[in-house]
Amino acid sequence: MSALLPVRLAIDAMGGDHGPAITLPACRRFLDQHPEAELLLVGRADALAEAAGWPRTRIVVATEVVTMDDAVEIALRRKKDSSMRVALGLLKAGEGGRALADVCVSAGNTGALMAVARYLLKTVEGIDRPAIATVMPNQRDGYTTVLDLGANVDCTAEHLLQFALMGSALVAAVDGKNEPSVGLLNIGEEAIKGSEVIKQAGELLRAAGEAGRLNFHGNVEGNDIFKGTTDIVVCDGFVGNVALKTAEGLAAMLSNFIKQEFTRTPYARLAALVALPVLKHFKARVDHRRYNGAALLGLRGLVFKSHGSADAFAFEQALIRAHDAARRGLMQRVHDRLQAPTCADEPTPAAA
Amino acid sequence: MSALLPVRLAIDAMGGDHGPAITLPACRRFLDQHPEAELLLVGRADALAEAAGWPRTRIVVATEVVTMDDAVEIALRRKKDSSMRVALGLLKAGEGGRALADVCVSAGNTGALMAVARYLLKTVEGIDRPAIATVMPNQRDGYTTVLDLGANVDCTAEHLLQFALMGSALVAAVDGKNEPSVGLLNIGEEAIKGSEVIKQAGELLRAAGEAGRLNFHGNVEGNDIFKGTTDIVVCDGFVGNVALKTAEGLAAMLSNFIKQEFTRTPYARLAALVALPVLKHFKARVDHRRYNGAALLGLRGLVFKSHGSADAFAFEQALIRAHDAARRGLMQRVHDRLQAPTCADEPTPAAA
Repeated sequence: MSALLPVRLAIDAMGGDHGPAITLPACRRFLDQHPEAELLLVGRADALAEAAGWPRTRIVVATEVVTMDDAVEIALRRKKDSSMRVALGLLKAGEGGRALADVCVSAGNTGALMAVARYLLKTVEGIDRPAIATVMPNQRDGYTTVLDLGANVDCTAEHLLQFALMGSALVAAVDGKNEPSVGLLNIGEEAIKGSEVIKQAGELLRAAGEAGRLNFHGNVEGNDIFKGTTDIVVCDGFVGNVALKTAEGLAAMLSNFIKQEFTRTPYARLAALVALPVLKHFKARVDHRRYNGAALLGLRGLVFKSHGSADAFAFEQALIRAHDAARRGLMQRVHDRLQAPTCADEPTPAAA
Repeated sequence: MSALLPVRLAIDAMGGDHGPAITLPACRRFLDQHPEAELLLVGRADALAEAAGWPRTRIVVATEVVTMDDAVEIALRRKKDSSMRVALGLLKAGEGGRALADVCVSAGNTGALMAVARYLLKTVEGIDRPAIATVMPNQRDGYTTVLDLGANVDCTAEHLLQFALMGSALVAAVDGKNEPSVGLLNIGEEAIKGSEVIKQAGELLRAAGEAGRLNFHGNVEGNDIFKGTTDIVVCDGFVGNVALKTAEGLAAMLSNFIKQEFTRTPYARLAALVALPVLKHFKARVDHRRYNGAALLGLRGLVFKSHGSADAFAFEQALIRAHDAARRGLMQRVHDRLQAPTCADEPTPAAA
């Protein structure tokens, strides 16, 4: 394995529903667990005062905050000294060539974060549109990386290929899998199924697989996300967003029903007491907080997005994912995957 | 309420993974519960022999069976005496004008059923493509009707409007709700969100709502299916299929995890015994068998599709849904919704 890089994280400490009340405790725990990492905490000076004496931490003052309801235009044109914007700006290369930070994490609103990141950082060569990649738990007690999650509607086949390449780089970086498998989300396993765009995307992915640029499994269906049939599931942002929200909605309903059933009668409440350790273990296993931290891929800088409603535990997971991705050189891996005519990890004699 | 019609159901008794082993017990129970209903059981004579003496039942012999793996072409061109095809044929008006059956139910493979139904019955005026509508449970302890579920990919805005109108007719017929609410599945509630087709569909649905043709709620997201925000959720077949399969996959994973947790240790197995009545009640509440029976809408004949893997209880639910839809005049309601410039249930003086 190549040498791991020391990582400096720029944190939008004001973002999300709760701001510093959750970002600061998460950062503190993260620092303790990662003795080589450095933090740049961005936000209002008064709100971040308690972090003044922390090790490997600098406070970068930003006077404004992008709220969860702020329109993209407000974040982009008006609040030029927002914690989100200043944190993202730290990813831009300075005069010496290296940027002040290696990766940025924000729990701020997705639309604003994507727009400001795109404006400040621009996309990497060969990428029209950045994508959002998240992970969902699967039956193999691992997780499946799904992209795009809503940044792009009306995708072309070429966009879906780009998502597949960037997703492969992400999983290779974060999970250390060199050749993660890619599934194309469709409504049947047969290659003749699906819309015209999906059929074309299938052909592009197959060709990319044959050229050694990625490990293409073929078509998968919605249930394969949770089966863990492939490491990565690629889809357009509309479909990915619907799949994610549908899963969240079902999980919320089932969780409510379980609570209702275990409180419905005196016997049920007794049974709940007895079953509590088992139910807790189950809950921990499907705890969505463990999967917090979506990657914005295709930008000239690494950006991770935490759920707006994340608590300190969840925000810390996003920090860890961001840290691991940066440490294992995700930026370079994305670049290599997109440029290389053959697989970046296994150069062949025939490679151009 | 208008007079209910006596209903004659044509049953593809050979369809599905299990054929007569589950369709016959389901039909028998259904007959006992519905003293006015009549059945036409279609299939091989030897396989249906036990139904020979049943009340209000006739056996219609068909010598072939469309298997779950048969290609559409086989069902359409080769097996002309299949139980599926003969059952669907009973919906065609005879010389006297009335068809032998009012509604057909099959657990046979979806592609074949849709193709044969479309070939034999044709679509109703104004409908380009039939849709598949199913129901999913929601937090209100009711269910949400979702269409399309995979019959149509690459839909236009006009198709989505047709789905909304047909879905409204279905819910009005099966659930007795005169003005069921319709949500357009999107990736945000704001009208400006989504793909071009979805934005256009939003405008068409809004206009149809203002004209009194349906009760349009606005955009909904994936989680609203399970919240029960609207009675009906409209989407193209690709998105609907992904949402359905994603939900099925998540439910299967969670169900497996619960089983694993309650058998992991001796204590967990004891807790499972204590919690059994509670878990059973929970399971019954989310039992997908209760929601079996998808409607094929837009054909000149009523067709309901059971899951191929349905057991007798599930197949009986499909029979009940089919029966209720026919009894409350779903065919006429679809016709009225599609033709009427204003709402069919509340004619206004200005109605053309």
